[in-house]
Amino acid sequence: MDFMKNKNVSITGGYWKNKEEINRKITMEAVWNRFYETGRIKAFTFDYKEEGKFTVHHFWDSDVAKWMEAASYFIGKGYDEFTERMEYLIVNNQMEDGYFNSFFQYPGKIGGRFSDRNMHELYCAGHLMEAACAYYEATGKDRFLRAMERYAELIEKVFIKEESAAFATPGHEEIELALVKMYKTTGKEKYLDMARFFIDKRGGSKKDYGDRWGIVGVGLYSQSHMPVREQETAEGHAVRATYLYSAMADVAKTDVDEALGTVCEKLFSDIVNKKMYITGAIGSSHLGEAFTVAYDLPNERAYAETCASIGLVFFANRMTALKNDASYADVAELALYNGMMAGLGTKGDDFFYTNPLEICLMHHGKDVSVKQNEWLPITQRKKIFDCSCCPPNLNRVLASIGGMIYGYEGDTLYVNQFAESKGEENGLWVKQKTGYPNDGHIILESNARKLCIRIPSRCNSFTANVPYTEENGYAVIDGGYAEINLGMKPMLVEADPRVYDDYGKAALIFGPLVYCIEGVDNKEIFALSIQSDTSFETEFDEGFGLYRIKAKGIRKNGDGKLYSPLKGEKEDDTLEFIPYSCFANRGESDMKVWIELA
Amino acid sequence: MDFMKNKNVSITGGYWKNKEEINRKITMEAVWNRFYETGRIKAFTFDYKEEGKFTVHHFWDSDVAKWMEAASYFIGKGYDEFTERMEYLIVNNQMEDGYFNSFFQYPGKIGGRFSDRNMHELYCAGHLMEAACAYYEATGKDRFLRAMERYAELIEKVFIKEESAAFATPGHEEIELALVKMYKTTGKEKYLDMARFFIDKRGGSKKDYGDRWGIVGVGLYSQSHMPVREQETAEGHAVRATYLYSAMADVAKTDVDEALGTVCEKLFSDIVNKKMYITGAIGSSHLGEAFTVAYDLPNERAYAETCASIGLVFFANRMTALKNDASYADVAELALYNGMMAGLGTKGDDFFYTNPLEICLMHHGKDVSVKQNEWLPITQRKKIFDCSCCPPNLNRVLASIGGMIYGYEGDTLYVNQFAESKGEENGLWVKQKTGYPNDGHIILESNARKLCIRIPSRCNSFTANVPYTEENGYAVIDGGYAEINLGMKPMLVEADPRVYDDYGKAALIFGPLVYCIEGVDNKEIFALSIQSDTSFETEFDEGFGLYRIKAKGIRKNGDGKLYSPLKGEKEDDTLEFIPYSCFANRGESDMKVWIELA
Repeated sequence: MDFMKNKNVSITGGYWKNKEEINRKITMEAVWNRFYETGRIKAFTFDYKEEGKFTVHHFWDSDVAKWMEAASYFIGKGYDEFTERMEYLIVNNQMEDGYFNSFFQYPGKIGGRFSDRNMHELYCAGHLMEAACAYYEATGKDRFLRAMERYAELIEKVFIKEESAAFATPGHEEIELALVKMYKTTGKEKYLDMARFFIDKRGGSKKDYGDRWGIVGVGLYSQSHMPVREQETAEGHAVRATYLYSAMADVAKTDVDEALGTVCEKLFSDIVNKKMYITGAIGSSHLGEAFTVAYDLPNERAYAETCASIGLVFFANRMTALKNDASYADVAELALYNGMMAGLGTKGDDFFYTNPLEICLMHHGKDVSVKQNEWLPITQRKKIFDCSCCPPNLNRVLASIGGMIYGYEGDTLYVNQFAESKGEENGLWVKQKTGYPNDGHIILESNARKLCIRIPSRCNSFTANVPYTEENGYAVIDGGYAEINLGMKPMLVEADPRVYDDYGKAALIFGPLVYCIEGVDNKEIFALSIQSDTSFETEFDEGFGLYRIKAKGIRKNGDGKLYSPLKGEKEDDTLEFIPYSCFANRGESDMKVWIELA
Repeated sequence: MDFMKNKNVSITGGYWKNKEEINRKITMEAVWNRFYETGRIKAFTFDYKEEGKFTVHHFWDSDVAKWMEAASYFIGKGYDEFTERMEYLIVNNQMEDGYFNSFFQYPGKIGGRFSDRNMHELYCAGHLMEAACAYYEATGKDRFLRAMERYAELIEKVFIKEESAAFATPGHEEIELALVKMYKTTGKEKYLDMARFFIDKRGGSKKDYGDRWGIVGVGLYSQSHMPVREQETAEGHAVRATYLYSAMADVAKTDVDEALGTVCEKLFSDIVNKKMYITGAIGSSHLGEAFTVAYDLPNERAYAETCASIGLVFFANRMTALKNDASYADVAELALYNGMMAGLGTKGDDFFYTNPLEICLMHHGKDVSVKQNEWLPITQRKKIFDCSCCPPNLNRVLASIGGMIYGYEGDTLYVNQFAESKGEENGLWVKQKTGYPNDGHIILESNARKLCIRIPSRCNSFTANVPYTEENGYAVIDGGYAEINLGMKPMLVEADPRVYDDYGKAALIFGPLVYCIEGVDNKEIFALSIQSDTSFETEFDEGFGLYRIKAKGIRKNGDGKLYSPLKGEKEDDTLEFIPYSCFANRGESDMKVWIELA
């Protein structure tokens, strides 16, 4: 299938509309302001030529480009508050030969261009290309796109025709998927060829052996340990990995390359069956922000970068498009609602880069031990990070959820996500009315001949008012009108016993949402366990826009002795859960997702 | 009470006799050889004057001194294999004014003496004094002791009379308890005055504010955050702390200083009721090798230095002597059998410095993540460490267990530890026959009028063939002959629920021994839980010289899915426990002390 373009889909209400609005009104502004204050905006517009005092970072361009991509999506939907800033930003300092990079164009640095694989030049270029495509699609204005086409031609010349760069493939993938977007936006096959070139070159060039992140395995960090088509397990830096895999899935689809598609399936399977948190977060290790071995999913020291969940969303959506299989969209949903949304505070102006599944403030200690625990993620959201990739990534994803909802192939329409919305593209239209994820009632209307509706794996039941058959995880019905009811009941989930960190524990889910308990609602949460046969009470929380859930559990009482013969003195208690994505919004607090079974 | 001197007590059989013999035949030799190979011995004898190529470390003298103390204990018991080495080592390069330190006497360094609080000069001096006292008591030869008396006089002059050193109190305590030993050995009150001086000066001098380990709190690291008599909680570096507290308890007893005794009681109580592992290990934090907040006792990343358990033994023995209270000796026993003995491999030639209570090899990862986990203790014993304080500390403690068994006051004899042994001092004699800790049957004979026998807190029952009354944790009987039976049954123990890391778990103990399960006996130990009402089967293990224990548990099976609705599929299984002190002797393996309750 192809996804309906973001600008052809309007989210008209509910959870994602609310997040889109918070993004437009608060998060976009917050990110812009922080980027301005920290010099990112000035660096991008080469203001350093005048002031000469910025310390430009080599991936700042990508930060700004992601914000520009987000702004373009909003402009495409008719919001014009970002137009002036976009015009201000669009690359005015491109070199004669097409090169653009605020770090290497800093006075005295240009000699270093294309000399170091780890300096993010093609990564920044990729993000600029994504922004340029989005801006062109939003406005029809092509100055930005043409600038990026010139840059792409320079890249083709240096990396493909002349092979004159010091490295063969970039240390941080991104250009590959961006080139596919360039192809789709311009129709020029050349960009697809370039994407394919960078994919197939990876892991096969001696030029790239000097991976300075050998600390996480020679080449593993940047998925350069072997040719891409031979890879069977997800390895290394999780964001790099998922950006690469996304491009691979893109190319597998455009080329109808089944072998490459099979590689993508294996990599996806390795992630979701062995290396993914229940929140859809990935990359559990803080060293290298990377995947580690299968089932190594520690909760308290989870790295689980917001961008990695976003990368998984990208990969999952592309696999959905490649395979017409709802199980991929199901993973995208999980990562969106949990791993990704945990990265944004409810007010919309503060962020997590790392997203732990457990916080034990005791382990963070007082003065005496706080520095000991640098391996622990931070416990409160921040306004900006030195490496601030996640906030503008949230900007662009929250501005483009619309583009993840509907797919089509011929006159078949796929409903991949549930959100009150309407879409129209290529002669097909669809309307969806629902209060999901707070309510499982969904009304769909469409002119498609066939309607394929994802059967969500985390709902208890799926019923429709019309007959349906099941195919690749979709309920297939004749087009027109359908009412769906998803069984939305809180449910306890367990992990494979090989996930040692979750042993003897359960997590609470409710539809696509993973829940957690916080100290602010439950006092000493580490003395609590949950009844495996608990009933549940739900209560809507206006602030979160989602349900809270109460469950029955046990609180353990001590006798004041540090160690004593097993007595198991306990009392009944109630556990108050909130959606995991809403944690750490009410002050510093203990938190946990996986709760011991009573 | 006073403890019978080590040389007046012979351990005649059983666990500690076996360990004493392993120490004499293997561990003493192994430590000597490693110290020779690494230059410690040559540095100590100033061989660097000839070769000029040693990098002498500023606390190497203490390593050698501890070995010398151990050798002296053996010499005192009639073993002469260490005599030649002792004569070779005894300080030949003392300066005219009494100073001795192989680091500062290294060419060009002498100007730095007494200039840096953290350079361990008085710590090294203290260990040399302990060795000198031990050698004098063993042999009656006083050359070493007189050399150390000259050094003590220099220290008195510099630190007390002139106050001319750059610091007021040492950064690492040790000299305080050593000076008490000097007092007891020589009878000279001056040394006791000096010990009291250093104790009371601590935390009260501006000279000492520049603690370079401010990272663990200004002054906290070296217990210098406030005057010692105002301290109520155990803080900072655990070895430093317990050495200081030991000296405080010594002085409280010799001075009959009740206020200082009360401080010691508070500090001891803070340790054993809030900051001690079930193994008697202390200092849970690897940063600063320190105590952290109450109940912060992580198992996998436990620092739990071998020397810290030894320090706790010292403190506990002195509290026993101060208070005539068996509960202190009970803690000494726990730390000896578990926290300390885990530090020595069963063969006697390899060591742990850190002693985790859980090893999850998965968390140590493959190449990709191994460096991430530097906060994790090592999983296999080593022959020597760069900072190799623990091995010679084991040498001296295992050569002096005899001195921890019997105490007396007037014609009352205290049996503080259980070991087949005989002792005679000050007109009192005692004989003990027992297979403890493998057997709870104990036969005691003594000419004491009153016999006070510790009632061990970790045995299920205490019976005697004669009437007894209870007093301060002792069973008090008329002297002569007594047969005691300790109920030795495996028992599950739970932790205070505020020890979050042990929540929902139980540990198995058997008498004084804490048990663990290892992967080598149990395959995937992280899929196992234990039945709270399990029966136990014991089986003697010749290699360990201790019992193994089998218990009933549950092994969890997955369905191959990473996450699935709670089913709790399980099968009955058997857990095979070994004594914790014997872990990591059969290859690298998962290990845990605290087991989830089924």
